[in-house]
Amino acid sequence: MLKTRFTEEFGFKQPVVCGGMMGIGIAELIAPCAEAGALAFLTALTQNTPEGLVKEVERTRGMTDQPFGVNLTILPTINPVPYDEYAEAIVGSGIKVVETAGRSPEPYMETFKAGGVKVIHKCTSVRHALKAEKVGVDAISIDGFECAGHPGEDDIPGLILIPAAANMVKIPMIASGGFGDGRGLAAALMLGAEGINMGTRFMATKEAPLHQNIKDKLVSSSELDTTLINRTFRNTSRVFKNSIAEQVAAKEAEGAEFADIQELVAGVRGRDAMSKGDLEGGIWTAGMITGLINDIPSVAELITRITADAEEIMRAKMEMIA
Amino acid sequence: MLKTRFTEEFGFKQPVVCGGMMGIGIAELIAPCAEAGALAFLTALTQNTPEGLVKEVERTRGMTDQPFGVNLTILPTINPVPYDEYAEAIVGSGIKVVETAGRSPEPYMETFKAGGVKVIHKCTSVRHALKAEKVGVDAISIDGFECAGHPGEDDIPGLILIPAAANMVKIPMIASGGFGDGRGLAAALMLGAEGINMGTRFMATKEAPLHQNIKDKLVSSSELDTTLINRTFRNTSRVFKNSIAEQVAAKEAEGAEFADIQELVAGVRGRDAMSKGDLEGGIWTAGMITGLINDIPSVAELITRITADAEEIMRAKMEMIA
Repeated sequence: MLKTRFTEEFGFKQPVVCGGMMGIGIAELIAPCAEAGALAFLTALTQNTPEGLVKEVERTRGMTDQPFGVNLTILPTINPVPYDEYAEAIVGSGIKVVETAGRSPEPYMETFKAGGVKVIHKCTSVRHALKAEKVGVDAISIDGFECAGHPGEDDIPGLILIPAAANMVKIPMIASGGFGDGRGLAAALMLGAEGINMGTRFMATKEAPLHQNIKDKLVSSSELDTTLINRTFRNTSRVFKNSIAEQVAAKEAEGAEFADIQELVAGVRGRDAMSKGDLEGGIWTAGMITGLINDIPSVAELITRITADAEEIMRAKMEMIA
Repeated sequence: MLKTRFTEEFGFKQPVVCGGMMGIGIAELIAPCAEAGALAFLTALTQNTPEGLVKEVERTRGMTDQPFGVNLTILPTINPVPYDEYAEAIVGSGIKVVETAGRSPEPYMETFKAGGVKVIHKCTSVRHALKAEKVGVDAISIDGFECAGHPGEDDIPGLILIPAAANMVKIPMIASGGFGDGRGLAAALMLGAEGINMGTRFMATKEAPLHQNIKDKLVSSSELDTTLINRTFRNTSRVFKNSIAEQVAAKEAEGAEFADIQELVAGVRGRDAMSKGDLEGGIWTAGMITGLINDIPSVAELITRITADAEEIMRAKMEMIA
């Protein structure tokens, strides 16, 4: 068992977090994470309405009596999202930990604080971490260049970003992006984090609500099998390097407008293809950790193995001290 | 004191390496590194001739009786470089460790092996590490996306690259790119490396043969102050983000040919400007670790601090194991 400021202040058994994943953060994955003592987040916007989210919270509670959280990713959208109502739904459903991502959680902090909800804000730079600390969040999930989805535009990997943030941030920090095994957890602790957040690694678990083709592909892929798209629109995403992602990258290199590639990158199409196990049918996100994924364990096996391996590595390396 | 496979097999006191730095790896920096128990490399090509290198080896020996090595960076050049003669000069001068970088060291392995010289090959990908292991090098210096100079074209940071290489490579590995403090050393050990290689961090030491303006700039800069150039020519370099580097990046984005930017990137101009402390006078390399450099210690202070801090961090984190 690893005890850190995160496990102590947030009351979870393991210094392991399953971060919000659109379409994937549903009861089937979140409940076993909670059972295993990790902090896992249902994704609010995977449910079409705040009422749907409340039902998903209840459905998850039907599968575990351990605590879990909800992710609320705040992004500019074409069709307005009722973020206030989602925030109220989270508080109303008795959830006590929220992961915010995207824009600053400032507009919702009062609601969350009034409801006794702890907030972990996920961000990709030291300046955003300091801003979040200032508006009162309880922890930072600091997300490096290696991550799936949105790494920001600074391209700073965890090896630099974690200690740089640790130099400045006073609240606990969880390291995110590029984590998936005990070596990474031990390294994150050395760099100044109090635990790790994982996304892609949880996609390759027995319980993840994903087609087997996707899981198998994560196992067979190397660290070279992700790519960045939407960089030219300053909305960079790390995605699996399939033929569509390569088409998008090529169009971007030619100076295409966003409208020209919109159909290719559309999330719904990618998720639809994913649900059918069609690996080339759309864009789907994956982090560089795919290069270090070699099996599809159960969530409980994965979490136990990562923390046990981290402890074993930390102990073994102590023998280097002469 | 940290004992690792690297310190044991190579016979150095500290698991710290000062990698080859063109124009900087001369006696004034290499001798104090050797005195402090680190493995440091004179750069062969900083001397205009193999005879000049032999003299620099002798000059260094006049300043320390501790062992040191020579870096031989093998690159395609417009004017042919007599690599064979440099390799012979290295062996002839009694040097026992060589750092190779750039192309495969295969053509020179026979010379080195016959001379009882151990070879550490620096490379930026798992496939190149395996190739080097196959041709008989004694260790790998695995160099991540964070590094100064040439990170390759794969953009894999140390957090992923080190364990990915450690999964495959059997000979000892030194982690390079993004290292400069005890946190980094401890993390590198957790990830499967047997020590760290540093370049930029050694630039900000009292003994580094660099203008004070450069050292001060490394202290005042953040992790956001480097940029990549020459990507469009598949010869990517991480350099300090000054006005010239930004001009080059802008020209590259417009699709400029290499000839169009050749004058801007010319190494001699950059080194000339560096020697005058003219930070905007040319391109000069710096790694992301510049964001974690906060002082200009002596080489001995730096090496002692890094290893002592790593030990202290490793001990302190053991208290997390409940």
